[in-house]
Amino acid sequence: MLHVVIMAGGRGERFWPLSRTDLPKQFLNIVGHGTMLEQTVSRLKPMVDGSRIWVVTTVDQAPAIRKLLPRIPASHILPEPVGRNTAPCIALAAYCVGREDPDGEMVVLPADHIISPKREFQKTIRASSQIAHQTGSLITIGIKPTFPATGYGYIRRGKKVAESAGYSFYRVSRFVEKPDQNRARRFLKSGLFTWNSGMFIWSVEAIVEALHQHLPGIATALQPLGKLPPGKRRAFLKRVYPELPNISIDYGIMEKDRNVLVTAASFNWNDLGSWEALANHLPEDADHNRRRGDVVSLDSTDCICFSAGPLIGLVGVSNLIVVATEDAILVCPREKAQEVKKLVQALRRKNKYQGLV
Amino acid sequence: MLHVVIMAGGRGERFWPLSRTDLPKQFLNIVGHGTMLEQTVSRLKPMVDGSRIWVVTTVDQAPAIRKLLPRIPASHILPEPVGRNTAPCIALAAYCVGREDPDGEMVVLPADHIISPKREFQKTIRASSQIAHQTGSLITIGIKPTFPATGYGYIRRGKKVAESAGYSFYRVSRFVEKPDQNRARRFLKSGLFTWNSGMFIWSVEAIVEALHQHLPGIATALQPLGKLPPGKRRAFLKRVYPELPNISIDYGIMEKDRNVLVTAASFNWNDLGSWEALANHLPEDADHNRRRGDVVSLDSTDCICFSAGPLIGLVGVSNLIVVATEDAILVCPREKAQEVKKLVQALRRKNKYQGLV
Repeated sequence: MLHVVIMAGGRGERFWPLSRTDLPKQFLNIVGHGTMLEQTVSRLKPMVDGSRIWVVTTVDQAPAIRKLLPRIPASHILPEPVGRNTAPCIALAAYCVGREDPDGEMVVLPADHIISPKREFQKTIRASSQIAHQTGSLITIGIKPTFPATGYGYIRRGKKVAESAGYSFYRVSRFVEKPDQNRARRFLKSGLFTWNSGMFIWSVEAIVEALHQHLPGIATALQPLGKLPPGKRRAFLKRVYPELPNISIDYGIMEKDRNVLVTAASFNWNDLGSWEALANHLPEDADHNRRRGDVVSLDSTDCICFSAGPLIGLVGVSNLIVVATEDAILVCPREKAQEVKKLVQALRRKNKYQGLV
Repeated sequence: MLHVVIMAGGRGERFWPLSRTDLPKQFLNIVGHGTMLEQTVSRLKPMVDGSRIWVVTTVDQAPAIRKLLPRIPASHILPEPVGRNTAPCIALAAYCVGREDPDGEMVVLPADHIISPKREFQKTIRASSQIAHQTGSLITIGIKPTFPATGYGYIRRGKKVAESAGYSFYRVSRFVEKPDQNRARRFLKSGLFTWNSGMFIWSVEAIVEALHQHLPGIATALQPLGKLPPGKRRAFLKRVYPELPNISIDYGIMEKDRNVLVTAASFNWNDLGSWEALANHLPEDADHNRRRGDVVSLDSTDCICFSAGPLIGLVGVSNLIVVATEDAILVCPREKAQEVKKLVQALRRKNKYQGLV
């Protein structure tokens, strides 16, 4: 059976002031209907129902997630006592899923990406899960690049080894960290590269085996979860988890394992890395401003405006991001959208802004 | 005796979103302590006490002014049924003051200017009132220009005709409408010009005579106020006032009368014509941002930030005006501060923004 593990522990600092410590990106309703987390779940229907969905999150966010997703069994909400990057997170989920369904497959999805159309998403997942089942490979879903992005990792495909429902599956010839502009252009031109989306599909058996091979410390530490009743997880993790290394699944397993395949998604994808990434998902006015919420502008062009309440009035500005909530406002040029993170970190250092960050 | 007439009927649209239709500039607490109107009154203490202060305002604003200034007799709050520019406003006040004190002098002051220090202000008023009393002239208080402003009218002084307490009083050789940049530079260089501040001092007798000479229609229409009990003013004005011409005291009298003198103020003056004009009155941070309220900035310089509540976060911007209230935000380059008025007018045209403008 196919299980879905949603990774929902992010902070989403780059979406300040909409995002807050206790309201990270996956809880935001930025695009479409419902929070990004709810959209991630409903995108799986009817392929995977609630009883086979799992959410790894933080202790702080777990109660809100239980409320938001009442159809997911409480024992499937897996709070990490501390954040330890994606490798421990995925290992935690793999052993818990394995306890219920040792012969199952699992797809790992971030909780805060925009994906459409749903039909193509499900087709990609279904074909990948079939190949994961047949081959025992670790499959990573690549995104066909649409521009020479320097903010993503790239995957170069090697030899084609399988096909399902029109999707080709290739050996990965190599993973490349965020390239510079020239390299990114060459990658795009070659047609051999996809972006690393952070979405994976594999059988429980295959990932557990890979964990033991490449990350034996993590595997040994978390293996007991495979037999532990859900009620005892919390105390166990509290003891074991903080000692685990902070390591990503890409670095810890995907880049090392020889049994990794890549396929190209047939859906549109946006990881909403910053306010800038939102532009194409907001309605555009005659002056090329992208906006959601109450915005009135005069002689202003190419801005991204997002209001969660207050009226935003623009006069004579261009290429700005303006975000307004009732208690905090952001003003930032579009090309500096990534820097918002730094402002948030500066705010965190000051006690007086505790509620605002 | 010296009476003070405060003109408090302005809309202050350029201070949106802080100013609103029912909260114009004179009701705002932008700089210093208390509203601009309260500061205008307290700047006169102890020279003129409440019993000799008069406020001309709109019917809408009158109740709020009565509340704000409880020491001013209710019969001294003079609501205009409709706005008709400064000439009718001043005539209205002149006849009402004359009814109580036909031999008095009156100083006319806008309610929404920043003036300091108080001591120099009072010295200027006292000297001018003495000369107004002695000579029966109409005195206009000029402001020594500090830069080649193109947004003010200028007054060229002529022959010196009197002196009091170190202040020289000159015949006005001419009034000049807002000049272009080159002309403004020449005016500044010549040392012969002052800005037209809209502050005047004269005896009741002199202004009434000038009204009859230059604006006989207004004078004849409002003359009955000189004998009318305060309780009957409202009905009288409602009938008479809407028919009066919309005309400024500058155009209607000051530019035509031969009995006009100008003196240079010894105080600092700012008419707060826009958010830009506020810059020098707000504390400056290390990056030359001027700010009031909660503002946190990163790589941002030379901005003017004003928050009435929400936290303003700036990332990588320069020379912007950012104003935040709980329900509306303004973002505008400093050099376009005057354009805010246009945005407000656009907002007024839409029903849905009624409460926000």
